[in-house]
Amino acid sequence: MTESKESFAEISPADFFYRNRDIAGFTNPARAIYAAIRELVENSLDACELYQVPPEIYIRVSSESTAAKEGPAIYRLRVEDNGSGVPPEYIPSAFGQVLFGSKYRIRQTRGTFGLGGKMAILYGQITTHRPVRVISSTGPRIYEYELIIDIQRNRPVVLSKKVYGNGNKWHGTVVDFALEGDYFRAMAKILEYLKETAIVNPYANIMAVDPRGRLYRFDRVTEKMPLPPQETLPHPYGTDVETIRRLMYVTECRDMLSFMTTHFHRVGRTIARRFLEFAGIGIKKKPKTLTPNEIVKLVQALKTFDGFLPPDASCLSLLGEDLLRAGIEKELKPEFIAVDQRKPSAYSGFPFVVECAIAYGGGVPKTGDIILYRFANRIPLLYDEASDVSWKVIHTMINWRHYRITPDMPIAVFVHVCSTKIPYKTVGKEFIADRPEVEKEILNGIREVARQLSIFLSRRESIEREKRRLDVFSKYLPKIAKFTTELAGREREPDIQPLLRSIVKYGPEEEGD
Amino acid sequence: MTESKESFAEISPADFFYRNRDIAGFTNPARAIYAAIRELVENSLDACELYQVPPEIYIRVSSESTAAKEGPAIYRLRVEDNGSGVPPEYIPSAFGQVLFGSKYRIRQTRGTFGLGGKMAILYGQITTHRPVRVISSTGPRIYEYELIIDIQRNRPVVLSKKVYGNGNKWHGTVVDFALEGDYFRAMAKILEYLKETAIVNPYANIMAVDPRGRLYRFDRVTEKMPLPPQETLPHPYGTDVETIRRLMYVTECRDMLSFMTTHFHRVGRTIARRFLEFAGIGIKKKPKTLTPNEIVKLVQALKTFDGFLPPDASCLSLLGEDLLRAGIEKELKPEFIAVDQRKPSAYSGFPFVVECAIAYGGGVPKTGDIILYRFANRIPLLYDEASDVSWKVIHTMINWRHYRITPDMPIAVFVHVCSTKIPYKTVGKEFIADRPEVEKEILNGIREVARQLSIFLSRRESIEREKRRLDVFSKYLPKIAKFTTELAGREREPDIQPLLRSIVKYGPEEEGD
Repeated sequence: MTESKESFAEISPADFFYRNRDIAGFTNPARAIYAAIRELVENSLDACELYQVPPEIYIRVSSESTAAKEGPAIYRLRVEDNGSGVPPEYIPSAFGQVLFGSKYRIRQTRGTFGLGGKMAILYGQITTHRPVRVISSTGPRIYEYELIIDIQRNRPVVLSKKVYGNGNKWHGTVVDFALEGDYFRAMAKILEYLKETAIVNPYANIMAVDPRGRLYRFDRVTEKMPLPPQETLPHPYGTDVETIRRLMYVTECRDMLSFMTTHFHRVGRTIARRFLEFAGIGIKKKPKTLTPNEIVKLVQALKTFDGFLPPDASCLSLLGEDLLRAGIEKELKPEFIAVDQRKPSAYSGFPFVVECAIAYGGGVPKTGDIILYRFANRIPLLYDEASDVSWKVIHTMINWRHYRITPDMPIAVFVHVCSTKIPYKTVGKEFIADRPEVEKEILNGIREVARQLSIFLSRRESIEREKRRLDVFSKYLPKIAKFTTELAGREREPDIQPLLRSIVKYGPEEEGD
Repeated sequence: MTESKESFAEISPADFFYRNRDIAGFTNPARAIYAAIRELVENSLDACELYQVPPEIYIRVSSESTAAKEGPAIYRLRVEDNGSGVPPEYIPSAFGQVLFGSKYRIRQTRGTFGLGGKMAILYGQITTHRPVRVISSTGPRIYEYELIIDIQRNRPVVLSKKVYGNGNKWHGTVVDFALEGDYFRAMAKILEYLKETAIVNPYANIMAVDPRGRLYRFDRVTEKMPLPPQETLPHPYGTDVETIRRLMYVTECRDMLSFMTTHFHRVGRTIARRFLEFAGIGIKKKPKTLTPNEIVKLVQALKTFDGFLPPDASCLSLLGEDLLRAGIEKELKPEFIAVDQRKPSAYSGFPFVVECAIAYGGGVPKTGDIILYRFANRIPLLYDEASDVSWKVIHTMINWRHYRITPDMPIAVFVHVCSTKIPYKTVGKEFIADRPEVEKEILNGIREVARQLSIFLSRRESIEREKRRLDVFSKYLPKIAKFTTELAGREREPDIQPLLRSIVKYGPEEEGD
């Protein structure tokens, strides 16, 4: 072989993700149909939350072939919501162009890469060669597009466009397309996904019809919506040279003092003054005159100055202890639940909050291991559990014996991480990286609920011991009373009830505790 | 909040990976400097293999600041090779444009995403705001570029360009740039990476100078190069509608028979004929006249026809049993090594081969657990071990007691996977997905070497038991001989050596086995 020249080529982002669809979770037909449903449902939930309307989500998977019930086949997937709708001018790109979307801002949304919906459509196209149909309305009119993705150019190709009147002022989005999938292999995971999604989004109605026509309904238990996700400014700690360069380009600020207070999260005039002094940059300096070296100095100072306030978590939408408890109660009906919401923390300038719970007994199945339920920004994570930071915490960092907990007990642990940026390790959003700050909060949260369970278990053990003791008394005391009465030649036996009551340590009103 | 309109935007691929650098392994300063060195070294090795020249790779990390030795600081990284070089017209894009490169073909290379080198340069730019310097020659002249990446537009911006004569006919590439890193926290991993890279690339000279001026040399032990990676055609099983559509667009074939034999891996005229009959497509049909429905039918037939030959692994460059054994021998000097190269197999139409080894005793440290060394296409994988398919196999699928192996023994397992497409789960190339076909080969490979170790261990135990038995004989026989000689009143003791020899079960020539 003497070929020494390489040939070079540019590929489009659509082409990149087409070639590497494994990294987005579209690995095989079973996983692909699961991922497609999941990505569209998450976009729908985001759209409803943005619009502040309780979600009505309707999913339909229908079989396109009369083929066997097992193995890969062509399915038609339709997901419908009553969310904000997509403005008509953006519909083709929002559904037919990779790296085009509304998710590229600092706020808590389920989608983070702006990629999932398009990957689902792209996967449908490369397995069926058929267009996607998108129907959407933001209120005035209803628009219907048929389009395909030109993968090599990463551009939508509109095949047809229709406009309808909208007398009912319907708003929302319908996505309808065909894809190859292995529904029956993925079914258990899909149903589990919908069930857990319903638990953490209790204000949503979710309805699904499967290829056999079976209907699954998950009804809302409250109309109360969380606040819409709020966009925040970048926190100084998470800033790099590129961020500053872009801000310099767009800023209208005339001096560094207003530059700092305008473009950064939780930086007021006092802090800005102290910081600029620390960084050795004049407060009157014009931002647009910063030299490359000064930008680097500024960024290094941003990372090392210890006077900034921590990121504010008020922009995060948490589940809350009551909701988490109610969801677990409803689903598992356990004997005992403990819940702990951690204080807000931050990594790389992104605020996050961890919510933990533990459930014991009742409907919690015994599997020989602790069952782990993982959630991030109100979506369940079902795949690749062993790669997740929570799994690492449970299996390698906690000494369960310390809490009188053994793997053969019926125990489930719940971890919910909320953040403006969940540190996923893959584009497929399957598992969370072990960022030290996140790991620590999860560890402390699980320790706290484990401690509460431990108290419950030891208390219950005392009660049982006590009950056995009382059983012995109530079994033998009447006999002793009877014999002694006979021996004494009396006729009336003494009343032993006061005696029995006097040795009860735990009253009945405490037993249900 | 009543905001209901979403704002949409397009971001460039460079911007996407800038925002999501975690998924490419650039998570924090320590990990970033490790990833930067790794990506550049892997590109260099690929370039040398392509050129069929034994690699000479020189890495220099120097400190740019006089700051403390700990924590993040600015470093200058220079990686130099004697590979094929990059043609001058491609230099700006090859180093300053994401999704532009030479890796987008079906062949075994270390790089698979065409992304790593650019991520390193991009990371350097966003942490130091300084340009990268690239010097390269394919032979005639030497070109030197200084450039930065316009991240928002994903285009290189050339700051300066110089051309030099090349009297010595030097070829190769030098990449030189500054980046923020935490070298001393990453140092152990970096050295481990270089050491393991040297083991599986024994034809390479690798030299590294660290910020303290210490020199690390890994000298080649052979000049014998593997064959350059060969490009292969797509295998029918791995084909989708998009592949066919693209082929239809570029093909010069006039009929389906030649279309099949020209564009697919291991499809000859006989197989093509049988396949087209199976698919119900005429052999004379013009490829460019296939309707969308016919394309879908064709792809479905490609996946279900069982008459195709399996992918050919001759395009793969394996280590081979001798090399793997020699590498382990050199590094760990163990008491026992067993090696197993599996037969070629395939997943989704990509051929792959698994090579396994086990080492016991000698220099293998006792860690209380089996030590796992992972390699993919001749590069070591050091991070996220617990997410890798090999870890799963070792820790959940093998009953080690069955092989008389316990975790407290000094044991190391080696797994090398070669493929035209390694099924990585992240763009950071840290771990391999548990594709069932790959998992099965790894499982069988480790079982085979474990079986050999088990035989060795049981044999060694027998030898030791035997040795103890012989020790008893050789201790007491002379005394018995002496006493009996005295008792019998004889003067000369009998020669006991023949007797001792007669009870030896394992001869000395076998002891070294």
